[in-house]
Amino acid sequence: MLLRQLEYIIAVDTERSFTRAADRCCITQPTLSQQIRCLEAHLNIEIFNRQQVPVVPTLEGQLILEKARGIVAEVRALEQFARQLNRKELAVYNLEAV
Amino acid sequence: MLLRQLEYIIAVDTERSFTRAADRCCITQPTLSQQIRCLEAHLNIEIFNRQQVPVVPTLEGQLILEKARGIVAEVRALEQFARQLNRKELAVYNLEAV
Repeated sequence: MLLRQLEYIIAVDTERSFTRAADRCCITQPTLSQQIRCLEAHLNIEIFNRQQVPVVPTLEGQLILEKARGIVAEVRALEQFARQLNRKELAVYNLEAV
Repeated sequence: MLLRQLEYIIAVDTERSFTRAADRCCITQPTLSQQIRCLEAHLNIEIFNRQQVPVVPTLEGQLILEKARGIVAEVRALEQFARQLNRKELAVYNLEAV
């Protein structure tokens, strides 16, 4: 599983469109579709109902999307935490005294 | 940031060695080192003190590792959740009635 695959399904869910999601992620639509198919194959779960317009997640897809959002949020939090460490906003060096 | 970069720093922290971590991850040691350097550059944080033998995380690295372990655990939980959905262990279809 790739982090960007989670970002792609979140983008499709947000945009309700593979084309707009691809634009949002700055990749081609075939690449986005392929990556999402790879994730669906890895999880053995169909995340989106492609027959509907606009595209909607399946019931199982909704549950996967909820967890994917949590993981991506944790990754963003790690990056934010690293920026805070770089700006020395956190008293990390005080931990040495613990 | 790549999920596998988080897995690599966890492996080095567990094995206390880049060589053993590479073996554990089934990749070459130069690939592992390069991926970890990429992550350190992305976060602008030195995660490991390479002067020490056995290798140890820096103080900032320990904080990053703690968060990385949380993210990787969430990813494993998502995969486990998908397996449960596939085995219909979760009453997902009942949600349609909600």
